[in-house]
Amino acid sequence: MGKRRFYLKDMKLPEDIDTLSAEECEKLAAQIRKLLIKTVSKNGGHLASNLGTVELTIALHRVFDSPRDKMIWDVGHQSYTHKLLTGRADRFCTIRKENGLSGFPRPDESEHDAFISGHASTSVSAALGIATAMTLKNEPYYTVAVVGDGAFTGGEIFEGLNNAGKSKTNLIIVFNYNQMSISKNVGALAKYLSTLRTKESYLKTKSAVESMLDKTPVLGKPAKKVIRSSKNALKDMLLHSTLFEDLGFEFVGPIDGHNIEELEEGLTAAKQFNSPTIVMVNTVKGHGYQPAEDNPGEFHGIGSFEISTGNPDVVPLDSYSTVFGKKLLDLAFADSRICAVTAAMKYGTGLQYFSKALPDRFFDVGIAEEHAATFCGGLASQGMIPVFAVYSTFLQRSYDQIIHDLAIMGLHMVIGVDRAGIVGEDGETHQGIFDVPFLTTVPNIKIYSPSDYAELEACLEKAALSDEHISAVRYPRGRQAEIAADTDGVCTSFRLYENGSDTLAVTYGRLYANVSKARDILVQKGMDTDILKLVEIFPLSDEAESIMRRYKKVFFFEECYEYGSIGEKYAARGINMERTALKGFITHGEPDSLLDSAGLSPEKIAEKIYSWDMTNGKT
Amino acid sequence: MGKRRFYLKDMKLPEDIDTLSAEECEKLAAQIRKLLIKTVSKNGGHLASNLGTVELTIALHRVFDSPRDKMIWDVGHQSYTHKLLTGRADRFCTIRKENGLSGFPRPDESEHDAFISGHASTSVSAALGIATAMTLKNEPYYTVAVVGDGAFTGGEIFEGLNNAGKSKTNLIIVFNYNQMSISKNVGALAKYLSTLRTKESYLKTKSAVESMLDKTPVLGKPAKKVIRSSKNALKDMLLHSTLFEDLGFEFVGPIDGHNIEELEEGLTAAKQFNSPTIVMVNTVKGHGYQPAEDNPGEFHGIGSFEISTGNPDVVPLDSYSTVFGKKLLDLAFADSRICAVTAAMKYGTGLQYFSKALPDRFFDVGIAEEHAATFCGGLASQGMIPVFAVYSTFLQRSYDQIIHDLAIMGLHMVIGVDRAGIVGEDGETHQGIFDVPFLTTVPNIKIYSPSDYAELEACLEKAALSDEHISAVRYPRGRQAEIAADTDGVCTSFRLYENGSDTLAVTYGRLYANVSKARDILVQKGMDTDILKLVEIFPLSDEAESIMRRYKKVFFFEECYEYGSIGEKYAARGINMERTALKGFITHGEPDSLLDSAGLSPEKIAEKIYSWDMTNGKT
Repeated sequence: MGKRRFYLKDMKLPEDIDTLSAEECEKLAAQIRKLLIKTVSKNGGHLASNLGTVELTIALHRVFDSPRDKMIWDVGHQSYTHKLLTGRADRFCTIRKENGLSGFPRPDESEHDAFISGHASTSVSAALGIATAMTLKNEPYYTVAVVGDGAFTGGEIFEGLNNAGKSKTNLIIVFNYNQMSISKNVGALAKYLSTLRTKESYLKTKSAVESMLDKTPVLGKPAKKVIRSSKNALKDMLLHSTLFEDLGFEFVGPIDGHNIEELEEGLTAAKQFNSPTIVMVNTVKGHGYQPAEDNPGEFHGIGSFEISTGNPDVVPLDSYSTVFGKKLLDLAFADSRICAVTAAMKYGTGLQYFSKALPDRFFDVGIAEEHAATFCGGLASQGMIPVFAVYSTFLQRSYDQIIHDLAIMGLHMVIGVDRAGIVGEDGETHQGIFDVPFLTTVPNIKIYSPSDYAELEACLEKAALSDEHISAVRYPRGRQAEIAADTDGVCTSFRLYENGSDTLAVTYGRLYANVSKARDILVQKGMDTDILKLVEIFPLSDEAESIMRRYKKVFFFEECYEYGSIGEKYAARGINMERTALKGFITHGEPDSLLDSAGLSPEKIAEKIYSWDMTNGKT
Repeated sequence: MGKRRFYLKDMKLPEDIDTLSAEECEKLAAQIRKLLIKTVSKNGGHLASNLGTVELTIALHRVFDSPRDKMIWDVGHQSYTHKLLTGRADRFCTIRKENGLSGFPRPDESEHDAFISGHASTSVSAALGIATAMTLKNEPYYTVAVVGDGAFTGGEIFEGLNNAGKSKTNLIIVFNYNQMSISKNVGALAKYLSTLRTKESYLKTKSAVESMLDKTPVLGKPAKKVIRSSKNALKDMLLHSTLFEDLGFEFVGPIDGHNIEELEEGLTAAKQFNSPTIVMVNTVKGHGYQPAEDNPGEFHGIGSFEISTGNPDVVPLDSYSTVFGKKLLDLAFADSRICAVTAAMKYGTGLQYFSKALPDRFFDVGIAEEHAATFCGGLASQGMIPVFAVYSTFLQRSYDQIIHDLAIMGLHMVIGVDRAGIVGEDGETHQGIFDVPFLTTVPNIKIYSPSDYAELEACLEKAALSDEHISAVRYPRGRQAEIAADTDGVCTSFRLYENGSDTLAVTYGRLYANVSKARDILVQKGMDTDILKLVEIFPLSDEAESIMRRYKKVFFFEECYEYGSIGEKYAARGINMERTALKGFITHGEPDSLLDSAGLSPEKIAEKIYSWDMTNGKT
């Protein structure tokens, strides 16, 4: 088609992508890569994984026909190129901004986003549901799940594969093998998968395989370089079958994930089977941008950065996570019972220090939150003190295990609930707004919600060394607020700040800073409020309750879903209060702005107290 | 050792078991089998699985040294022989009775019960935790997990295997292969595993393998018939390696699970590796009792029965489960969008009718509750109406998926929450007392709690065909009470029974029958109470709330954990009430007795209202 000029923004997508020549596809990939780097350097987001899937996504949209064919991304943060190729290039600069594009697929954002996917290992199950529905409705379309190898460490993938392998569906699973999930991949499976990867050269040179495949009837181009049928006896003589073939899948690959032509051949071949097929694709995270290739961990999820150097604009020296990780290491040096467990979030949860200093007591279990909790149960049953550091939203995966493998037996462990509360730009699937509601349904649990670094350290120490059952210490994403509480490193049940007011604002965690600022606003207006900052937020405190009863008016501010909240529980004890909690799912955006929308900014908090004071209070 | 007489009850166990001759072991097995049949025929319980593991358990206790070595049963209902061999024979007649032995392992019952195990697929994770703690403490003991093939359909097993395979622990996983979990095993994995099983004869006759193994240095008896080392190149030439070897395990087997000598050889061989090893054991469910061998599904969990015929004493013609299953089938005949999903509980949830009549829309996914929920999400995203019938306690496994793969996208599905409330004899791990607390934390969910069959049918129909998001319909184990509500098959939000009283008893579900009986007791005493029976229990009803506000005194009775209960939520709206809910985990026993202990029997309910009436009410 010659040298016509084209720009992403001028194309009608995804339709026009089919008309491109091979050369134009390469140019498009370069254009996309540039746009990804530019946008993420400004907005922050997931870079390395998206740079790794540019060619794969182009090939997918040339071979498959979205939205008729469905594409599911596991996890969805590798879907940026997909968004660019499905008519969202003009809004791409808004990604992860409030009211802008989401950083994850969202069916309500585009008909090309078949399913939401913020938590890992769900894709095969979701895709099987979609493909099964198509079978039932006699729709001859394809469902494609693109799964990173990190997602393969989560048990739900196996549940999905176990069910998909036997199904009669047009399900294609693209196994995007990039040798890491978020930090380096773990487990026996990772080792096994790496042996698959290395068979590439082996396969390509085996003329026996090639000649065998020449005889295989394949519509369109014969994809002899890449196709392998499990039905063929010859193969079994050459190689033992893959784990995937054991599970009932056809297998194609491995394919060079940065070679669009080879990708198209492999995907086209996979379509011919009309039965569940796995296509293994080798990609390089950060491909095409040296800083990201060199350090894909750092460029996994990143804030804004300088393109020429790859240096992040702000290097955070500390955060709740690092404070947690360092304190835990201190405790572990002094007490050999303490073990640290993470589900593929070593850096995110600040456990990198622990992993280096005490590797024997550090366990990265992969994206396997169910296993993590039960494993902690096993450790605890032998007198160890396991500390599981995990994002609030991912802890939802451990709910049954917390009850069944820990609480019933009265075992002692600590859960470090990181990213508790609103996390911001990652949106609905990542907000940590349910941990208080679901953890409070676990009998005999204790929940701490410190509001600054010193208090976090004190709570962690108390939880690990003084408590007897399950203790959860929850803390938010990011850094402590400028206005910190005067906690002097002591973990008290609560702190009461008396200013002689007849109103009381009750809160906990980082919201204390907002309530404190709200009080400053009120003082400027000639008013005031007392503040009760809870620290051990559950079980409820009789003493805190009796303090609340002393006030003419009680306000309760918290950053979790309203049903199951702490305020609800105190209210159920007959305390008359005005509660502000979250009404439902929280979209993506800047945390302070989202808190404001929820009525939890200093201004909104002050306004609420002020307006009561103006009407009911003073009249 | 000749023909000395011995009886289970006279032996010092587990120590004495090591002194038995092979012949005596066989006799012991026969004795145990007889006792199992006799006891379960009286008390009810799990029979087929226990008959299948008699020889295996004897061999385990001869080869391993409990409680120093740890044994974990997945799931624990196959641990009856273990209980008999660890000093509990004299109390075995009390199994599953209140204050008697538990039907599952319980560390607080015996030092030989290393870990609780009522939910499937947890054993490898728990055992790895225990084995890791031993490694850290330099204890050279063994941890043995006995896992049925049913448990292998749950994702957590894979998370556990993925982490265990690479570990440096004395972990031995006995894979008890009996070709079924609860109903017939499902999935590609089951098919694959059956190919492993059939390699038995193949292996035994391969003289090449035998001669290879003669050279392997093994302490004690060389177990040449059964041992296979993954390190041996010869094996790879003969057989492609097993999935387990791909995951990093040594592999021994398959072994005849009813041949004690062969079992001992295999287990002894496994000990020699001192690294994670899988021992595959073929057993027959119900072995040695013809009715159970012929119908292991029926003898999985069973009530009392007549030994000579194997006929259950009572054949329940109907239950909430069968009513649910039949109604769902009716709905599905009329609406082709309706699909039924179960996690290995086809019979338990009454879906056997559906599976026979509409096999294309019936999905038994194995013990895979995570997958089940996400799979429903996929189906729902394509306009199908998936109905997931699942026991309340197992639904805890789907918590994250309900939020992430259904609620966020606003998808429509129905959850049939079977065994909601106290289930009785199975104890802590099986009571359905958390579904209301955790489901109410899911935004936009609707929860129904019908109190008789007709209402269940009406609720299910409304949930499936009229609702728009996630609807849960919860109902108890067993049959409807004699006193049924006058529901005339209509699903209303609530029903108010006015008797002119100034007290109101609020309840829902099967407890309505108890509250209704309590009113009869009160009437006999010359008192009365009005009754508000909630049906759509969540979201809260403004109308129901305003009714409650009309009364001088409100009592709220419910059969779930107190935190997260419905009463708590109404109380938090400022309604002054006296709430009776469950204070924590509920032990095993007869449901009516457990309800009484919780203050929820007709007598206790009447007493509560009566005593208020006598003191506060009338004074």
